[in-house]
Amino acid sequence: MNEKISPQSLLIVYTGDGKGKSTAAFGMAFRAMGWQKPTAVVQFIKGKWQTGERQAAEALPLVDFHVMGTGFTWEADDLSVAAKAAQAAWKKSTDLIQSGDYPVVVLDELTYTFHHGFLDIEDVLPVLTSRPDHVTVVITGRDAPEELIDIADLVSEMNVIKHPYRQKNFKALRGVDF
Amino acid sequence: MNEKISPQSLLIVYTGDGKGKSTAAFGMAFRAMGWQKPTAVVQFIKGKWQTGERQAAEALPLVDFHVMGTGFTWEADDLSVAAKAAQAAWKKSTDLIQSGDYPVVVLDELTYTFHHGFLDIEDVLPVLTSRPDHVTVVITGRDAPEELIDIADLVSEMNVIKHPYRQKNFKALRGVDF
Repeated sequence: MNEKISPQSLLIVYTGDGKGKSTAAFGMAFRAMGWQKPTAVVQFIKGKWQTGERQAAEALPLVDFHVMGTGFTWEADDLSVAAKAAQAAWKKSTDLIQSGDYPVVVLDELTYTFHHGFLDIEDVLPVLTSRPDHVTVVITGRDAPEELIDIADLVSEMNVIKHPYRQKNFKALRGVDF
Repeated sequence: MNEKISPQSLLIVYTGDGKGKSTAAFGMAFRAMGWQKPTAVVQFIKGKWQTGERQAAEALPLVDFHVMGTGFTWEADDLSVAAKAAQAAWKKSTDLIQSGDYPVVVLDELTYTFHHGFLDIEDVLPVLTSRPDHVTVVITGRDAPEELIDIADLVSEMNVIKHPYRQKNFKALRGVDF
């Protein structure tokens, strides 16, 4: 169990196949903003396209937004480029967490980096467990590793009951999905 | 099925016992804000205490926040007061949806009003299905009625894997939980 558990912060994991994981993480930023608390967001996947969350963050002084790599795509032939981008993003995340400047740090879609072998969960765990007492970390992504769930305080699994794009071949909607 | 389905909007339901339902709804507001789209939020439960989401909304011109009733509590002896507050909040919700002024309308914890018999699902469904084409409605709350799931485009169920307060008797954290 997490040695650093205290009533001042939580380690939160939103996982599962359903929609709402990243959206809930951005809701954390929204809520923290209401208390004048700054949030840092590191996105481990979405690197190329413009999103509502990114534009909102750019417009809001209390939200500090970082996107992994430049020009990163999952289709990149050279996965070592992706691995390096993931490691750089994790380095950035570590700095943001350890700075203590952000009472909420969102690591959006971090779990994908484990599935692809870009990051080793064993390197990530100590940073999470030794975070400053007042820093809540929110991690999103499918198939969160057991080791992460073990040390988390709050884990919600979003399950698909209905998914419009999968079931009806809808196009993703600006302002709704991204 | 929903006759009004179009690629311009979705009817979204976040249900289940896990954390993240309302948080995801506020994430929708955050995302919509990034595209300069106004969001209306109607909260069907939280009436008395100050929350981060409410303070954020008050500070943000693109988010219009309404809280059901004044002084409403679940402990009220006279449930007819609560029922009237719920009906007034639903009337407000109907106006917000039908105005077409808000591309995203959040009905936070609406499902509780059905469980308590304050609102009849049969009165609610036609407003949802006949909403303007460009209006996405996001409904949160446990135990969403089947009739609502039937007409929804996207349904995610948040399940508890770990819940810190239930399991460890933690106090809810300002800026994190509310």
